[in-house]
Amino acid sequence: MGDKFVYSFHEGNETMRNLLGGKGANLAEMINLGMPVPDGFTVTTEACNKYYDDGETIDKKIIDEIFTHLTALEKSSGKVFGDPNNPLLVSVRSGSRASMPGMMDTILNLGLNDEVVEGLAKLTNNPRFAYDSYRRFIQMFADVVMGLSKSKFETVIDDIKAERKVELDTELTTDDLKEMVRRFKSFYHAELKSDFPLDPREQLALAIEAVFKSWNNPRAIYYRKMNDIPSSWGTAVNVQMMVFGNMGETSGTGVAFTRSPSTGDNQLFGEFLMNAQGEDVVAGIRTPNHISELQKVMPEVYDEFVAISKRLEEHYHDMQDMEFTIENKKLYMLQTRNGKRTAKAALKIACDLVSEGLLSKKEAILMVNPNQLDALLHPQFDQDDIKGETPIATGLPASPGAATGQVVFNAEDAANYAQKGHRVILVRLETSPEDIEGMNSSKGILTVRGGMTSHAAVVARGMGICCVSGVGDIKINEENKTFTVGGKTYKEYDYISLDGSTGNVYGRELKTVPAAIEDDFETFMNWADEFRTLKVRTNADTPRDAKQALAFGAEGIGLVRTEHMFFEGERIKAIREMIVSKTSEQRSRALAKLLPMQKGDFEAIYETMQGRPVTIRYLDPPLHEFLPTSSYDITQLALDMGMEVDELKGIIQGLHEFNPMMGHRGVRLDISYPEIAEMQTRAVIEAAIAVNKRNADFNVVPEIMIPLVGDVAELRYVKAVVKKVADEIIETSGEKLDYMVGTMIEIPRAALTADEIAEEAEFFSFGTNDLTQMTFGFSRDDAGGFLSDYYDKHIYEQDPFQRLDQKGVGKLVKNAVDLGKKTRPNIKLGICGEHGGDPSSVEFFHNVGFQYVSCSPFRVPIARLAAAQAAIRAESK
Amino acid sequence: MGDKFVYSFHEGNETMRNLLGGKGANLAEMINLGMPVPDGFTVTTEACNKYYDDGETIDKKIIDEIFTHLTALEKSSGKVFGDPNNPLLVSVRSGSRASMPGMMDTILNLGLNDEVVEGLAKLTNNPRFAYDSYRRFIQMFADVVMGLSKSKFETVIDDIKAERKVELDTELTTDDLKEMVRRFKSFYHAELKSDFPLDPREQLALAIEAVFKSWNNPRAIYYRKMNDIPSSWGTAVNVQMMVFGNMGETSGTGVAFTRSPSTGDNQLFGEFLMNAQGEDVVAGIRTPNHISELQKVMPEVYDEFVAISKRLEEHYHDMQDMEFTIENKKLYMLQTRNGKRTAKAALKIACDLVSEGLLSKKEAILMVNPNQLDALLHPQFDQDDIKGETPIATGLPASPGAATGQVVFNAEDAANYAQKGHRVILVRLETSPEDIEGMNSSKGILTVRGGMTSHAAVVARGMGICCVSGVGDIKINEENKTFTVGGKTYKEYDYISLDGSTGNVYGRELKTVPAAIEDDFETFMNWADEFRTLKVRTNADTPRDAKQALAFGAEGIGLVRTEHMFFEGERIKAIREMIVSKTSEQRSRALAKLLPMQKGDFEAIYETMQGRPVTIRYLDPPLHEFLPTSSYDITQLALDMGMEVDELKGIIQGLHEFNPMMGHRGVRLDISYPEIAEMQTRAVIEAAIAVNKRNADFNVVPEIMIPLVGDVAELRYVKAVVKKVADEIIETSGEKLDYMVGTMIEIPRAALTADEIAEEAEFFSFGTNDLTQMTFGFSRDDAGGFLSDYYDKHIYEQDPFQRLDQKGVGKLVKNAVDLGKKTRPNIKLGICGEHGGDPSSVEFFHNVGFQYVSCSPFRVPIARLAAAQAAIRAESK
Repeated sequence: MGDKFVYSFHEGNETMRNLLGGKGANLAEMINLGMPVPDGFTVTTEACNKYYDDGETIDKKIIDEIFTHLTALEKSSGKVFGDPNNPLLVSVRSGSRASMPGMMDTILNLGLNDEVVEGLAKLTNNPRFAYDSYRRFIQMFADVVMGLSKSKFETVIDDIKAERKVELDTELTTDDLKEMVRRFKSFYHAELKSDFPLDPREQLALAIEAVFKSWNNPRAIYYRKMNDIPSSWGTAVNVQMMVFGNMGETSGTGVAFTRSPSTGDNQLFGEFLMNAQGEDVVAGIRTPNHISELQKVMPEVYDEFVAISKRLEEHYHDMQDMEFTIENKKLYMLQTRNGKRTAKAALKIACDLVSEGLLSKKEAILMVNPNQLDALLHPQFDQDDIKGETPIATGLPASPGAATGQVVFNAEDAANYAQKGHRVILVRLETSPEDIEGMNSSKGILTVRGGMTSHAAVVARGMGICCVSGVGDIKINEENKTFTVGGKTYKEYDYISLDGSTGNVYGRELKTVPAAIEDDFETFMNWADEFRTLKVRTNADTPRDAKQALAFGAEGIGLVRTEHMFFEGERIKAIREMIVSKTSEQRSRALAKLLPMQKGDFEAIYETMQGRPVTIRYLDPPLHEFLPTSSYDITQLALDMGMEVDELKGIIQGLHEFNPMMGHRGVRLDISYPEIAEMQTRAVIEAAIAVNKRNADFNVVPEIMIPLVGDVAELRYVKAVVKKVADEIIETSGEKLDYMVGTMIEIPRAALTADEIAEEAEFFSFGTNDLTQMTFGFSRDDAGGFLSDYYDKHIYEQDPFQRLDQKGVGKLVKNAVDLGKKTRPNIKLGICGEHGGDPSSVEFFHNVGFQYVSCSPFRVPIARLAAAQAAIRAESK
Repeated sequence: MGDKFVYSFHEGNETMRNLLGGKGANLAEMINLGMPVPDGFTVTTEACNKYYDDGETIDKKIIDEIFTHLTALEKSSGKVFGDPNNPLLVSVRSGSRASMPGMMDTILNLGLNDEVVEGLAKLTNNPRFAYDSYRRFIQMFADVVMGLSKSKFETVIDDIKAERKVELDTELTTDDLKEMVRRFKSFYHAELKSDFPLDPREQLALAIEAVFKSWNNPRAIYYRKMNDIPSSWGTAVNVQMMVFGNMGETSGTGVAFTRSPSTGDNQLFGEFLMNAQGEDVVAGIRTPNHISELQKVMPEVYDEFVAISKRLEEHYHDMQDMEFTIENKKLYMLQTRNGKRTAKAALKIACDLVSEGLLSKKEAILMVNPNQLDALLHPQFDQDDIKGETPIATGLPASPGAATGQVVFNAEDAANYAQKGHRVILVRLETSPEDIEGMNSSKGILTVRGGMTSHAAVVARGMGICCVSGVGDIKINEENKTFTVGGKTYKEYDYISLDGSTGNVYGRELKTVPAAIEDDFETFMNWADEFRTLKVRTNADTPRDAKQALAFGAEGIGLVRTEHMFFEGERIKAIREMIVSKTSEQRSRALAKLLPMQKGDFEAIYETMQGRPVTIRYLDPPLHEFLPTSSYDITQLALDMGMEVDELKGIIQGLHEFNPMMGHRGVRLDISYPEIAEMQTRAVIEAAIAVNKRNADFNVVPEIMIPLVGDVAELRYVKAVVKKVADEIIETSGEKLDYMVGTMIEIPRAALTADEIAEEAEFFSFGTNDLTQMTFGFSRDDAGGFLSDYYDKHIYEQDPFQRLDQKGVGKLVKNAVDLGKKTRPNIKLGICGEHGGDPSSVEFFHNVGFQYVSCSPFRVPIARLAAAQAAIRAESK
């Protein structure tokens, strides 16, 4: 941290974004470009951080520095702050590195008081303008500095309008506005037990502190969390000489984009209002005019603005979002920044800027946020229909897209009702693997419990179905088939709508628009593939998922979860038999029933993938997940097994675990029951031989992946079992077949002893979900109970299940990579956890030297783009 | 590995123990000392390892080497292997680095066959001896080489005795023995479907292979696990010329200790039999004579033996356990080794050897196995009463000592029945914190579930109460108050006995002898303290535990688990109120009730510890552990809280967690409910001020320990809460009080980011229980379900909850120490997990630079000794 905390606009430039914030840096840059910008200065982000370091006090030295710059501003403007005869008024605006709608934005007209307003009236010969500015200032100051909601003042305004029998603000006279100022001040006093501050310097100091404070208001924190912005960045404050769009009909104000932020079309897009200040444009009281109208109203100003727009776009090589004010026919630029845009517009703009020669392909690739692609791949709500709609509840945005349909409360109902042609939203406390079919039949899934990586979330993402998880406010009554939220009860077959991209739940049917991939998408993704070195695979358990992922550009399967295949009809019966077997023979008999089904599954997946690599994970979850819970099912199973019901109940009870996530699962099952690994190996290998035989041009090389290994001895044991079975089958078949045996690295101890594990493992696939759980010591299913407190109290800023925790978990990953390569320099490295589809995590994996990432089908394009960006960024380092 | 796999006894010496095994090295050494030892050779431990590396085949080269040495032995002995005219017979005995009773031990008389026996008869003019040797050989070979149990042959012997109407073996004639040989061979063929091998070289090869194989028999594996012996050590095989104690009344055999292995008294202790082979002495068919009798029988031999004993003890500086044989009045030494001894004898011998000038104090300290001390601190079974008793079940040796009493099935019954003066054994599926009082009233605790660090195990060890956990074979019927094992049902009030040092459960009342600490203990422990640099603290939750630990030499408390104080009467009510509170006010009200109780607890503990350091861990377990489960308790609590029963049930259900171990607990509670940390701080600080005021000579410096931290931000938040409350109280009191705030390192992420955490933490206390769970990814409560498979299949050799896994968990510990010191060079480092009382782990903690270990009171002496040994060993490195 330096000891300069305030910069004049003439001292800055666009590269000083971290110090001056985006707004401040761009104002300075526009001045450097010779554009008309009212003068001012920026209090730096470092001043904000120091404010917090100093226990929320602004250092005396910084205050002094501010007022030194204020004096300079007085000099350059020829006006004096607080001088009624020649008053300088300023705006105070926050501006952080990244644009942050959650924060305090703007106070206009600061510097006004009872005397200055009179001077302003005289000086401009426009008392109405002066008092209009004053009343706006009081209202804005009370709101953003003192937290006294703006809307509370509206009743005062309404009273006066009623008394004067007028409807529009513009119909109010100067005297009306004077009366309004009087009433505002007395309302201010009544509500805040203090007088409205008349000392302009006090106004300024309070306003600057309010900007600093707004950095940590709940909305800002929430926004940062959603957008990966660290709280350590802080915000800058811009103090700028006021220019007035409300000085009469030759003044005005407006906002515009250099291209359409909605479609990306290359034409000026925006609105303006004459005789107005900035807030009026968005307030919706008067209807603003389209920017093209300005050409008629003030052709010179319009031309100047168009020229500036073009120049800014060329300068920044990106679409710009600008604010301007016209004061007595003179144009002033108040802001420019890269404009926000829809996914569709983002791709079009990127492609167009390349064809226009303004950007290289690499630059274009870096310009699009990979997460934005999601919106193109899933249905979205019709923006007109959803406008103004308030959610009835909000959960976690677990699987993107929009869905609308009728509520059902269990998977069976979902399947049945969907079969009759209805659109169904499945509402559950939580889902389990048995619900798969019903989930697949639903348009959307809502769960009360569970996080971003709960069963529902993971499966829904795989299926590309919209899902909102962890909607804790909803109370379900499964018996009555109702749920209650916000005092209202929803019944079976009532309509609701889910936005899986925001977590919002709406209480009615909403129109949706389908996903639409256009040409720009193909062009753009092809460019991405040119630069990408990381392969992108998918997590897929069925040919359907695999097909979807291939369509999105997947280059293989990084994770087939074999257990997901075990939940249908005969299969679940056989697996239950296997689990409750008392002897190795019983177990083998049950497994023999599963073998042909599993072999069939693998054949179908190999066929779909046409020889691309397929990694098959052996049975992973705790066995009791498969066990029957209802009395009926238990009795049925006992009958099938020729067992006493009580005995079976005893066995089921014996399988109970306190912490199933850390219990008898993964490789531990294969060690207790090597018959399972034998059966799965038989299925994997026989299927591969059959498919290779049928398709001369395929060369299926199955990758057998053993989960949950923590010690090389575990892998050594199971690998021996696998190799014995596999080599025997291959030998007997007379065919040639290569296969690999590797492991997941998902237990901290595996990462710590990866050098030993690499002696046996031919590949590592990082299971960052479990690795994150165990490294952090909390279960993703239970973390929902306290993580909200963690966000509220600034302890975490990120959900470590969404974005890889590079400091802790990442250290283990890095360690494992280094150790693994020491033993086996050419070891194959990949990831199949949820992080495989998260852009920042993808970059990390690229940088530590993985060969591939694997993610759910609908995140494949995101991973492709993120991988391209990572490669480009790494290259330029 | 060299390429010499066989060593003549003349090539070896005592330093070659790793290569030749203990037996081989000591035989060679005795030859070097000029003692009478029959000649022979040793097949090395490396040969054993190679045998396993080569897929259980003895390399041809090794076979050749063996027979080359056999030829040399023929030469030195002047006899020929398999030559009826001058036969060489040999013994084959296993001998690993450490003495291992689980392995195959001995085959005598190898080299005999139908022809050789005749030759031997002629040569010795003693056909009875020859056939006696032959029948012994067949029986022994069948047993140890072919696995055909020795006892099966006994019926053959009994038949012959019955036919001949004699009782003793010695009464059988030569013809009887010939007949026995005939019948043995035909029994051998019938059982094994192969002829008894008559080729002596085949006999030898098979016997050597059998020794190798015995290295991995289940008993040997179990013994290694119990005694921390790595399987990679392998075993050596000793082939030695036979000398015969059964050649007539001038021959004999015996075993002796240079001092009493039972009391340590310094006088020759042992037994012998004339006209017998080794096995007869221990077989108990004839009653052996006390070694002193030998003086009368053969004074010269006795004197020679006494002289050899003395010389061996002086040479090895330790009490020796020797085997000898007298062949025709000539003494031969067959073995010497450091003798096993009771704990009492171990201390006495160590002390005596120091006073006799044979050992330095350091050497004496290194001579005693710390774990042995346990036996001095707990009651043991009367050895006469337990002799020959078969356990009805076996579990884990969770808390040492012996206990006998009447079975009860719940904690309440335990408390009530004990109050009436009965000795009670509490038998439970598992225990929970609510059972504390009942556990405290019991003589012993048996749980069906749970491992060495389950709740029952941890608490029992703290209380010094015998506990056997994880007795999976027992089926409890809690309703009927019975349990069933091995087909037998035990009712309430039936007597059973537990051996907490072995895990054995016996089905009747057994006599016990009380713990007895004698003078040698004090002397010896004081020596240990002279060399120890690591401090030893205790884990103690009550003044009673603390007092016990002080008596055992504890220098402070390393862990007060505050939650254990919350289970009694009013307390549990208040904590339940706290948990189900809907508002912060309700919560504070409930906490206010707990404050005076908790403060009182801390005062009592500080008073007991008289100013020694006390580390207090803040509330740790998941809240639902405290919640009522019975309808009655729930209704009662709802009444107390003025809540609807259904609402309360909802709250309780809402607290359910899938994986409570990884749920809302530890620091996470303080973050959600800072009121808890506030109350606990108030209690800690106010109690310290009060106690310091009352006792001018105390300077209580409380160490506040925040559990389950995974990110420095968590600690920073809670530390701020703690400091605010603490500093305010201290300020208000006008007293001076120092206190520290630190954290447990028990989450992998904490270890990985210890540099950051050390910015806030003034000390680290390693919670190696949780750290082990999370690093391995399994819960100690559930691991019982599969760990037995892991031991059976050689995947683990150690229970990582008993002995710190240095490869994985140890790496994290080391990493955390290094990172922590980088940030805060003088950071205080300790451990309060179960490993704090495990000798090998204590050595690790010494070596990584901890200041202290903390363990349960009854393990304090063990830790003191282990710490002394660690210091001495580290010094000599």
